[in-house]
Amino acid sequence: MLDDVLRTVAEEVKPQFGRGKVADYIPALARVRSDHFGMCVVDVAAREASVGEASEPFSIQSIAKVFALMLALRVHGHDIWTRVGKEPSGSRFDSLVQLEYEGGWPRNPFINAGALVVVDSLMRRHRRGADRVVLDYVRVLAQNFTIEIDEDVARSELATAHRNAAIAHLLKSHGTIDNDPLQVLEAYCRICALRMSCLDLARAFLPLACRGYSPALGEDVMTEQQARRVNAIMMTCGMYDAVGSFAFRVGLPAKSGVGGGIIAIAPGHSAIAVWSPELDRSGNSLVGTAALEAFVHLTKVSAM
Amino acid sequence: MLDDVLRTVAEEVKPQFGRGKVADYIPALARVRSDHFGMCVVDVAAREASVGEASEPFSIQSIAKVFALMLALRVHGHDIWTRVGKEPSGSRFDSLVQLEYEGGWPRNPFINAGALVVVDSLMRRHRRGADRVVLDYVRVLAQNFTIEIDEDVARSELATAHRNAAIAHLLKSHGTIDNDPLQVLEAYCRICALRMSCLDLARAFLPLACRGYSPALGEDVMTEQQARRVNAIMMTCGMYDAVGSFAFRVGLPAKSGVGGGIIAIAPGHSAIAVWSPELDRSGNSLVGTAALEAFVHLTKVSAM
Amino acid sequence: MLDDVLRTVAEEVKPQFGRGKVADYIPALARVRSDHFGMCVVDVAAREASVGEASEPFSIQSIAKVFALMLALRVHGHDIWTRVGKEPSGSRFDSLVQLEYEGGWPRNPFINAGALVVVDSLMRRHRRGADRVVLDYVRVLAQNFTIEIDEDVARSELATAHRNAAIAHLLKSHGTIDNDPLQVLEAYCRICALRMSCLDLARAFLPLACRGYSPALGEDVMTEQQARRVNAIMMTCGMYDAVGSFAFRVGLPAKSGVGGGIIAIAPGHSAIAVWSPELDRSGNSLVGTAALEAFVHLTKVSAM
Amino acid sequence: MLDDVLRTVAEEVKPQFGRGKVADYIPALARVRSDHFGMCVVDVAAREASVGEASEPFSIQSIAKVFALMLALRVHGHDIWTRVGKEPSGSRFDSLVQLEYEGGWPRNPFINAGALVVVDSLMRRHRRGADRVVLDYVRVLAQNFTIEIDEDVARSELATAHRNAAIAHLLKSHGTIDNDPLQVLEAYCRICALRMSCLDLARAFLPLACRGYSPALGEDVMTEQQARRVNAIMMTCGMYDAVGSFAFRVGLPAKSGVGGGIIAIAPGHSAIAVWSPELDRSGNSLVGTAALEAFVHLTKVSAM
Repeated sequence: MLDDVLRTVAEEVKPQFGRGKVADYIPALARVRSDHFGMCVVDVAAREASVGEASEPFSIQSIAKVFALMLALRVHGHDIWTRVGKEPSGSRFDSLVQLEYEGGWPRNPFINAGALVVVDSLMRRHRRGADRVVLDYVRVLAQNFTIEIDEDVARSELATAHRNAAIAHLLKSHGTIDNDPLQVLEAYCRICALRMSCLDLARAFLPLACRGYSPALGEDVMTEQQARRVNAIMMTCGMYDAVGSFAFRVGLPAKSGVGGGIIAIAPGHSAIAVWSPELDRSGNSLVGTAALEAFVHLTKVSAM
Repeated sequence: MLDDVLRTVAEEVKPQFGRGKVADYIPALARVRSDHFGMCVVDVAAREASVGEASEPFSIQSIAKVFALMLALRVHGHDIWTRVGKEPSGSRFDSLVQLEYEGGWPRNPFINAGALVVVDSLMRRHRRGADRVVLDYVRVLAQNFTIEIDEDVARSELATAHRNAAIAHLLKSHGTIDNDPLQVLEAYCRICALRMSCLDLARAFLPLACRGYSPALGEDVMTEQQARRVNAIMMTCGMYDAVGSFAFRVGLPAKSGVGGGIIAIAPGHSAIAVWSPELDRSGNSLVGTAALEAFVHLTKVSAM
Repeated sequence: MLDDVLRTVAEEVKPQFGRGKVADYIPALARVRSDHFGMCVVDVAAREASVGEASEPFSIQSIAKVFALMLALRVHGHDIWTRVGKEPSGSRFDSLVQLEYEGGWPRNPFINAGALVVVDSLMRRHRRGADRVVLDYVRVLAQNFTIEIDEDVARSELATAHRNAAIAHLLKSHGTIDNDPLQVLEAYCRICALRMSCLDLARAFLPLACRGYSPALGEDVMTEQQARRVNAIMMTCGMYDAVGSFAFRVGLPAKSGVGGGIIAIAPGHSAIAVWSPELDRSGNSLVGTAALEAFVHLTKVSAM
Repeated sequence: MLDDVLRTVAEEVKPQFGRGKVADYIPALARVRSDHFGMCVVDVAAREASVGEASEPFSIQSIAKVFALMLALRVHGHDIWTRVGKEPSGSRFDSLVQLEYEGGWPRNPFINAGALVVVDSLMRRHRRGADRVVLDYVRVLAQNFTIEIDEDVARSELATAHRNAAIAHLLKSHGTIDNDPLQVLEAYCRICALRMSCLDLARAFLPLACRGYSPALGEDVMTEQQARRVNAIMMTCGMYDAVGSFAFRVGLPAKSGVGGGIIAIAPGHSAIAVWSPELDRSGNSLVGTAALEAFVHLTKVSAM
């Protein structure tokens, strides 16, 4: 039945192609074709359904911030909230203004400043490098040991990351990060350069729909409360500066990346991953958002 | 059973009293005793449970902004969104900064600027006065025709509303409101001065938990989509600048008022109203938030 | 000789006409012809020279803020600086942002917020109305008892002054003004509606070039230190957000108004008034600025 | 006679010691004794007068920004103003907020962002390194070939310059600088680490008081217009966020550094350098400002 739903969704979103714009701030992303589309649902009974290029890996970009947060919660528990807030920023995801006004304390872990702080917190405990630790964690969650960091994207990203370098230095000037700003930035760029498919993402994030339990691993990967809270942060901070519009249209906790991916959680029901590279003006996948809206309309799984 | 839950909640929150501060910016609110506590749940089958002073009317203040929005949706339909946004502001609810930077376009209908625009939109269609129309609408929703505007609070509010007057004039200077700024402000102050009990609120907002259907009236008072959308706006914009923290702790769409009331919606389950005048630093009821957190913990009704 | 200079200046600025824009935010200003030009110099020996329509009265607008400040210094002495700052704002003259960030304390007496505070300070002492007191003061300084407030401009200004009303209410909400915001605003609008000629202005401001001494009255109208300080405030805060550019081009303390007038002070040398209604993007007279630049070039009176 | 004036000034400022705070953000500055005081005047006839430790070299810090600007004007002429503004910022000298709001275009050459752009412009033309070029230029202007960069201060500054690194990266992200951000930052830190005495400074800046002519070199080092314009920028942008207060008290174009030095220009009269390490809250030498105020009071050289 979920297969039917996905087929209907794929049909319904067809008129949306050609209205957005593929991210072009680095060559490695700009050369991705605009007409990709893939979608995958894994429900709480671990049933999987998919449509289109659901097994094709793409650059997950900011979706990786959720993995970093989940790992930081595992490592530091509630203490991570002493280093980063949990409020929507009301500003662009890469704003320095708010960071300066608020003494170098990032509003939430999904704006760039907050993700840099989360990555810094992972570097403190892990000699191997935060990027390596996140990669290992993601491979286990997705049960796919071929997942890799795209070195080309990571390098390209780092070479042009002047604004993020500014954020990292500003964090350092406020003492909000402990490690060298450029090393934190490099780990951050590498984590954002993870390549995963919709199938990988839906599997890896399924515990957020199952109150922390991973059907694949047969164990809790976080507490029920932690799962609910990560969902809450996604709900209020996950979609750049279109958090409200997305809640309005889709009504599910979600996180997007400029590679065109979105992961959405229907608590108690399923994890849904969608990929389509054309972005709307807020930097969220245009077709992906439409697909999730159609999915919610057909399945009535809205959290609202 | 819900009665048992509420009794447990009331017990659990007792240690929280004395840690907040009753709103004191106008005498009419400042003289309210700090130890009030009432809570009421009405579920989708219209079963009611309550504890404490659930039938005691209090000043609902900003909770009234949800009624104004619901009525504006009824009157203008989707067009209301051409006049006000649906994104969290990331700023204080009474900020002029964002309004100036964004050309007089309010971020959402629950900050003061946005609510003034919604009230202005109601004045255009209703000769009788927007306050009167909202009052009639609320009475019908709550099925209680003794609900009144507290004239004392309304007057007191208006006399000290210099900041809101500044907002109203700034909106007018940008052409965002049509009517005289001070008349809009007066209607707004009167609507915020509505006196209702937890029971009234839970009954009146029950349609938001029932996909737009009012069990009391036996009819839809809004479409399913409208109900979901009002919930989404509450989720991302309803709790002043503690939207993320509230989602994190409670995970339900909600709206608070400085009178100490909070209305929360558990979609598909119930509407929950709570009242306790002591406020936390964000202006939300301190004991009320704790009560909702306990309620969600006991009933597992979180939307996350 | 100054007559020759002014004739040369008038010749040199001719190509500048037609490149600016007459203020059009109120009808009473918008209907002024764009090709007016007048200029008048009164030197410290009270010798007068003029060219063009130097005796034609026009709406002095923000130039009036200097008179209000001079009078407030006379009434309150140094205490006025407890109510308003003396730093350039770096923002637009009618910004609410800075005022909100800085707790309702205006940066300087020449932005609208600061001028409203100065006018409020004059209302406290003067039952007759601050506008009347300023009018009397200006008539004496200029030795012209036919100077009047333009009632048409004052009314028109007040009717559209929503942004200034917002500022006045914001000041009131912070307790920075004592009187009713709309009464302060009315007095402010009336003061800005003063009609004076270049000759009136140059005569009235001559004491600022003479260390506080008025040759016309044969007495000091302020202390030497006060004269130097008013000049310093004009130098750093007098030309809206083009303070630096004006200092760069002209190098004299000055104050402009949207009516197209500018008064400039060459300390120890002269007071220079110029009028031409076309404004540049910062709201300063375009031809007037060019005329002052030419004047400084010819006479070498730059303070720099 | 100027010697008498300086002796009186030195006497008058004695009660001011102990009320400020030596800059302590880097050890190399923090260990400077707080009770130093030196002052030197060189008039347009090249007569020199001094008092106290006028020949003792100290870290000139931001005063160096004026040298960088003078050299950039020599190299690029008026074109430098296409890369940096000339308006007071109204914000802290190291603010990122304004830079972000204004698309990476610095308000003026004396805030850190603007000085970095000026240094970048010097790097483009000079293979040897902008710091070396500025050093050579300063030695010639001061006619003192023992002037050096303090390597200890430069290193210490660079090691803690996270906020300036953030600014440099933000400039780079907007394309406002051409060179590598960290190389620009290093050159900037080295230029700010110049060690000069009051005598050196007064001699080197004398051309600004002489319409561009250097009595020491017997030639113009800039045009008259350039000299006036550098003075104008100092007048409106030279004293951090106390530009207006300084103009109010002293009324001369000036530039300060956190090492406790201030250079002031009395156009047509003299260049005055003063040094005393205790800073006021704006980061300007507390005793130095008082000394200049006393000097102006005694000599009547105010530009206002």
